[in-house]
Amino acid sequence: MAQDRPTIRLYHYPLSPFSRKVRLVLAEKRIEVELVEERYWEKEAEFLRRNPAGKVPVLRLGSRMMSESTAICEYLDETHPEPLLMPKSPEARYEVRRLVGWFDDKFHREVTEKLVGERVFRKIMGTGYPDSGNVKSGAKAIKWHLRYMEHLLEQRRWLAGGEMTLADFSAAAHISCLDYISDVDWNLSETVKDWYAKIKSRPAFRGILADTVPGFQPAPHYADLDF
Amino acid sequence: MAQDRPTIRLYHYPLSPFSRKVRLVLAEKRIEVELVEERYWEKEAEFLRRNPAGKVPVLRLGSRMMSESTAICEYLDETHPEPLLMPKSPEARYEVRRLVGWFDDKFHREVTEKLVGERVFRKIMGTGYPDSGNVKSGAKAIKWHLRYMEHLLEQRRWLAGGEMTLADFSAAAHISCLDYISDVDWNLSETVKDWYAKIKSRPAFRGILADTVPGFQPAPHYADLDF
Repeated sequence: MAQDRPTIRLYHYPLSPFSRKVRLVLAEKRIEVELVEERYWEKEAEFLRRNPAGKVPVLRLGSRMMSESTAICEYLDETHPEPLLMPKSPEARYEVRRLVGWFDDKFHREVTEKLVGERVFRKIMGTGYPDSGNVKSGAKAIKWHLRYMEHLLEQRRWLAGGEMTLADFSAAAHISCLDYISDVDWNLSETVKDWYAKIKSRPAFRGILADTVPGFQPAPHYADLDF
Repeated sequence: MAQDRPTIRLYHYPLSPFSRKVRLVLAEKRIEVELVEERYWEKEAEFLRRNPAGKVPVLRLGSRMMSESTAICEYLDETHPEPLLMPKSPEARYEVRRLVGWFDDKFHREVTEKLVGERVFRKIMGTGYPDSGNVKSGAKAIKWHLRYMEHLLEQRRWLAGGEMTLADFSAAAHISCLDYISDVDWNLSETVKDWYAKIKSRPAFRGILADTVPGFQPAPHYADLDF
């Protein structure tokens, strides 16, 4: 018997921080979703029809194909406001969006791409060995970024203010990919570690912690809530 | 005599598409602003205090320093809703945000960085000669992107739907930088040209059309409304 409810499907890749951000938002809002792993770099014709930008995540919602992770997350927050991941005041919303931009643009370019990109995706995509200059630069940059997060978290319970928001999910999506390959030195900041422990122990995080990528063992503490 | 009204100041650079997007939004909403040109790549200590991300634009609003152009634009739209640049329905808002992401991420990486970045910024920043491979790839990619814009504009009056939105300003900010250096072939699409003529003739566009960058003459048709 055919199901009446239209299927929500997310085309994703396990160590894509942008896919993870959308997965966290879907799970936090208890929106049931069918996950389809997509080797998007192979640019399979069918996938390009789903998203001309040729990247993950893509959310299929009824007959709509949605791309651009932040646009998807804000849409989900507006249509499924429970729990709300964007605050109400324009000032607080600005701060959330600033930080989502910070992690998805600056942190991604300086850290995630340089470490997860070099160490994992090069091998999976078959584009050669890690560039050691990039890895070195990423390893240096993550320290600076963890200090910046510490600076924020010394004044706030969550990254953008008193409440958990999309900014925390954006940051945690990147950090969790880096933690999978042991690239986060948790000795650097007790404050950042406490924040990550808090977000990692949410039920919405379970799917992320169960991810595996063939050829890459997760760090022993990766799924450990008491790391 | 000191002025009572706190000054709104935008640290920007003339051929930065992200600065232009914010300038267009400010002008469209008739928010008076003092423009300060910032050679952000010199990472002057004072500028880094204003924005730890070290990039333009940065908006000083009273005592606040705001960065991340899209976060700034959405904030301005929420606090100065006249005229509204984000539609009301979640579906329409999603489409605007998807396209802002498209231009500021994909179009920027594939086109603006490869053409304006190589031809202009390398010289200004003193980082060498344009990489001809990048220029070639940018020149090829812009054709594909103009066709994509044409595809959208054949179904819609503006890029994201029936009304002018932030998506049009995001696109026009990139296109106008490319047009300054003659990198837009207006023979490729009458539809896209009509759209650009429409947005270019808005009073909000005047400041952009008056920009000059020392050492780079704008294309003869750059400021011409009847190009």
